[in-house]
Amino acid sequence: MKNKIRAAVIGANGYAGAETARLLSAHPETELIALTSRANRGARACNIIKGLDSELVFTDADDDTVKSADVAFVALPQTAGAALVGELIDRGVRVIDLSADYRFCDTATYERVYGVTHPRPDLAAKAVYGLCEHNRDKIKSARLIANPGCYVTSALLPLLPLARAKLISDVIIDAKSGVSGAGRKSDEGYAFCTLDENFKAYGIFTHRHAPEISEKLGLPVLFTPHLLPIKRGILSTVYFKTNDAKKAQSALEEAYVGQPFATYSETLPQISDVAHTNRCIFSARFDGERGIIVSVLDNLLKGAAGQAVQNMNIMFGFDETAGLPRVSPV
Amino acid sequence: MKNKIRAAVIGANGYAGAETARLLSAHPETELIALTSRANRGARACNIIKGLDSELVFTDADDDTVKSADVAFVALPQTAGAALVGELIDRGVRVIDLSADYRFCDTATYERVYGVTHPRPDLAAKAVYGLCEHNRDKIKSARLIANPGCYVTSALLPLLPLARAKLISDVIIDAKSGVSGAGRKSDEGYAFCTLDENFKAYGIFTHRHAPEISEKLGLPVLFTPHLLPIKRGILSTVYFKTNDAKKAQSALEEAYVGQPFATYSETLPQISDVAHTNRCIFSARFDGERGIIVSVLDNLLKGAAGQAVQNMNIMFGFDETAGLPRVSPV
Amino acid sequence: MKNKIRAAVIGANGYAGAETARLLSAHPETELIALTSRANRGARACNIIKGLDSELVFTDADDDTVKSADVAFVALPQTAGAALVGELIDRGVRVIDLSADYRFCDTATYERVYGVTHPRPDLAAKAVYGLCEHNRDKIKSARLIANPGCYVTSALLPLLPLARAKLISDVIIDAKSGVSGAGRKSDEGYAFCTLDENFKAYGIFTHRHAPEISEKLGLPVLFTPHLLPIKRGILSTVYFKTNDAKKAQSALEEAYVGQPFATYSETLPQISDVAHTNRCIFSARFDGERGIIVSVLDNLLKGAAGQAVQNMNIMFGFDETAGLPRVSPV
Amino acid sequence: MKNKIRAAVIGANGYAGAETARLLSAHPETELIALTSRANRGARACNIIKGLDSELVFTDADDDTVKSADVAFVALPQTAGAALVGELIDRGVRVIDLSADYRFCDTATYERVYGVTHPRPDLAAKAVYGLCEHNRDKIKSARLIANPGCYVTSALLPLLPLARAKLISDVIIDAKSGVSGAGRKSDEGYAFCTLDENFKAYGIFTHRHAPEISEKLGLPVLFTPHLLPIKRGILSTVYFKTNDAKKAQSALEEAYVGQPFATYSETLPQISDVAHTNRCIFSARFDGERGIIVSVLDNLLKGAAGQAVQNMNIMFGFDETAGLPRVSPV
Repeated sequence: MKNKIRAAVIGANGYAGAETARLLSAHPETELIALTSRANRGARACNIIKGLDSELVFTDADDDTVKSADVAFVALPQTAGAALVGELIDRGVRVIDLSADYRFCDTATYERVYGVTHPRPDLAAKAVYGLCEHNRDKIKSARLIANPGCYVTSALLPLLPLARAKLISDVIIDAKSGVSGAGRKSDEGYAFCTLDENFKAYGIFTHRHAPEISEKLGLPVLFTPHLLPIKRGILSTVYFKTNDAKKAQSALEEAYVGQPFATYSETLPQISDVAHTNRCIFSARFDGERGIIVSVLDNLLKGAAGQAVQNMNIMFGFDETAGLPRVSPV
Repeated sequence: MKNKIRAAVIGANGYAGAETARLLSAHPETELIALTSRANRGARACNIIKGLDSELVFTDADDDTVKSADVAFVALPQTAGAALVGELIDRGVRVIDLSADYRFCDTATYERVYGVTHPRPDLAAKAVYGLCEHNRDKIKSARLIANPGCYVTSALLPLLPLARAKLISDVIIDAKSGVSGAGRKSDEGYAFCTLDENFKAYGIFTHRHAPEISEKLGLPVLFTPHLLPIKRGILSTVYFKTNDAKKAQSALEEAYVGQPFATYSETLPQISDVAHTNRCIFSARFDGERGIIVSVLDNLLKGAAGQAVQNMNIMFGFDETAGLPRVSPV
Repeated sequence: MKNKIRAAVIGANGYAGAETARLLSAHPETELIALTSRANRGARACNIIKGLDSELVFTDADDDTVKSADVAFVALPQTAGAALVGELIDRGVRVIDLSADYRFCDTATYERVYGVTHPRPDLAAKAVYGLCEHNRDKIKSARLIANPGCYVTSALLPLLPLARAKLISDVIIDAKSGVSGAGRKSDEGYAFCTLDENFKAYGIFTHRHAPEISEKLGLPVLFTPHLLPIKRGILSTVYFKTNDAKKAQSALEEAYVGQPFATYSETLPQISDVAHTNRCIFSARFDGERGIIVSVLDNLLKGAAGQAVQNMNIMFGFDETAGLPRVSPV
Repeated sequence: MKNKIRAAVIGANGYAGAETARLLSAHPETELIALTSRANRGARACNIIKGLDSELVFTDADDDTVKSADVAFVALPQTAGAALVGELIDRGVRVIDLSADYRFCDTATYERVYGVTHPRPDLAAKAVYGLCEHNRDKIKSARLIANPGCYVTSALLPLLPLARAKLISDVIIDAKSGVSGAGRKSDEGYAFCTLDENFKAYGIFTHRHAPEISEKLGLPVLFTPHLLPIKRGILSTVYFKTNDAKKAQSALEEAYVGQPFATYSETLPQISDVAHTNRCIFSARFDGERGIIVSVLDNLLKGAAGQAVQNMNIMFGFDETAGLPRVSPV
């Protein structure tokens, strides 16, 4: 049997961490050597992570096995894992961080948005932003990947080609997310009876992803998230003004030709087109100076665990699609 | 304006208590004088109970206003309100208890099932079981009503006429309930992501409602509850053997003729026929000695708050249908 | 017993028509004298309209009883009922039309948008737009009410006070509707397996409600509808620029003080706050020249049947809230 | 590249056929050579079958390519494909039939239940019943597999070991299925607004799967199906009497040890444990002579397409788990 790389998942009991563990347990090139969860330390992981194909027992993040990994996926809450990421990097472990801690080029913005002092500005400066379709070369040699979030990825994939070509302004992102985007919760606000047959907006003018999107686009954006009564999936409706609708249309059609996981579609995509896959599909309509983009992805896959594994595939020279689903079920 | 009776709801922040408060706030014959909630003491009730038409502020159960009520609805967890019910009765307040505390004729069974010593066996002996269609006369003069539960009502209404006529045996009740039946929860087991697109059985051979059903029927029953991914409604599929299918069929058709809230239907009823109403609808099919009944109701209305208000209507001589919905929306 | 007015519903088997029939069957001031449905002619209405409290049999729209009504609610598809409305008016029946046929002041716009010739431009000019909170006086004496649609009402109630005060520009309405808004459908596009766990945008730049909103606001608007996997409810997220945020905030807070069914809320409203009620609740947030409004209502009540009955209450001098729910269940 | 077998799917636009096509398009050992759909003839399959990884255009079933296949999956409605199956077998194509047409040993029972004359009783006698865990040896050499249905598989896997050991009697199967089990529908009975927040029983005493289960068990069974408001999954609650609870418990625990897709679980399984996987998981509880089994599977995978591919894996000597998911997502 060929050599597999040794992978660890820190915070594997959260939805994103569990999804990462599931993908890695079925990945042809990786051996899962450690899953950590403070809350479930000592429990068999497959009893907590549904259908996980592994005999591993949850350990703590400071377990030595973790430090012996070729790659560690850190899926801890924002700010909770920033220091640990530094220690792992210092130990020579390549890290893919699913939190926002290393996503900002400008540490000052991060510290303002998250209200903390960044423990490792030195590393923050070196981290590679893991938006695979835009940073492949840097990702190949990266030691530390800051894996983009779900809302951000759904907006950046269609908007980056337009922003770089200076084709757009007045960007408004009206985003709708499934409930798993909020993570594993035992809180009445996320109870079935609270959310079933319901829909709401939140974080108006104040959501932490707006500054991340603005920094990457180099444009101010207005971002409003909403909570959908579904488990998985994001649909972002993006409004903007353009100085050249024709150029914008071509830029969108050409940006990702031949890419396995980012696709322009003539027909408007729906969440059911991408749920349970690692794909982001988007379409656009124009009317005079007005443009509207509809972009969809699965918040736990292309929006989190799937893109993290795609980053690993690129870092280690595997087939970029290895272990990543492209087919959406009924 | 005519005199209204003064009503209080104890434990008004739970789903059943809140539904009772909503019904009473729109009831033509009642004035809502107190709503209690330890957790929300001091908060305006209409900020917690959606759309409640009342300016009341949550008080504690020992508030004097409560003791001045003509009727108190006690919607506290099993065993938690048993003593309070006694105090209110001693003060001359008529009580409708939505818990199981006063439902058993045989206190010993209650103490075994709930693992507590009953604080008021004297009252338990005098309490009237508030299955309206069967105990109207006793309800009229009752001081204390033990309001039946949702699963129990869905089973007893079709089964009592058959059991009393000694027409059935080998009773198996396979019941499926919406999530609100579990009450207001902030527990991962009731999170949207846990229950959406899911279905499960629980309490096999051990559920506390089996002994209640058996006592009222005078027959052993096998009862298995399941959790449906919907907010409201119960459907019970009841299997039994009969010594006379023809008599059983007629008994079911005739039992509730002219009753506003219990109805035999030729076509099989669905949960959507009764959701948001105080009705219980059931139908039956027979094949040789085998019979199957399908019975549906709304667990928060005919299964809890609605039946409680129906009991109040009977106790105080109001129109039995006053303030109770009979129309199910789309 | 006091005299009730005689009411008929044309097209009572659609969702809006059925909801109107349900409301009227429980309304203290009306007697339901006719329900029409070509598809179900001869069938007992209560077998088709869940829980309807009426013994009526579906007739055809040309039935004489209809012509003897004091008021007729016409709930036919766009363009299908325009001529019939004229005949009823000519017969002296007061009409509340739930379709778009008589909503436009400018018949040319209607003919362009719906691709038909208007059969009664004479009446179109006289029809009163039934946005109750804004046209009470005209509604009182109206012979023909054009009842606003669900998307339109959710947008106009918060936006009209701002537009009339010339406080806003650059209006974008991102609206999300429950499935009942599409009406009763037997089409794979509306099948459970197509819409469950799904979400989509449609009608980008082309939806027929945009011109209706623009005409009433006197402003161009960008309107994008989306389909939510819930039965009832609309949430509209409205983006705009304002020349005076402070004035805009006060205008919204003051516009509907004391109104039973239109309410400004400090906290962001959710669909569950208004489902199964006739209320529209909205809130606003401002940041510099940018404003965002979140507005919710029940598409079948304040967005259709409920507002139609509210119009009838005003036309006939009844209590404006008669027969209209204000309390949202769990 | 190694030789792959050539596979065709007849009726690939239905849910079971589409799921089969999706599984085959990602299967390491098969090449998809033809997809047929009369309704969609000439359309690119990947425009109809979400995320299908294939450039195939839908053809008709009589297309020559089909006849050149190594294996054909026939996913047509009951009775519609029976003759075609015969023609394909005569041409030397191995067939896996997802319908009920070849499931009955006793053709007379089939003809009574489905009200048709069987076109190929000769083949019906030779067909192998494709319940993989029980017929591996016969499946290996089979020319024609009758793939069991979803309800039937959920009941037979736990019940067969008990029936063969003569341990049970009085079997009642109360089964609950997700909506995709009904196939692709454009019928108001399957509309989102009809089924959302709803639940119903159907086919009481009359469902066609009861005779199939009885024949395979060699026991009479009472079978009642119900419709759950979810897309995928079946949970069957099975009631029975046993002459030896201890032996029955061991029989269930031992029956499938080491099997990849059939598993006894100490904890009660839920639908979310198996949705999107090819697994059937079941558990049992006993109380005196009474036994209850809870069994779950995904109706489109282990209940249809997944078991069909598992049969193909066995027929062609592939790894039995090839191309079949075992991991259930959040």
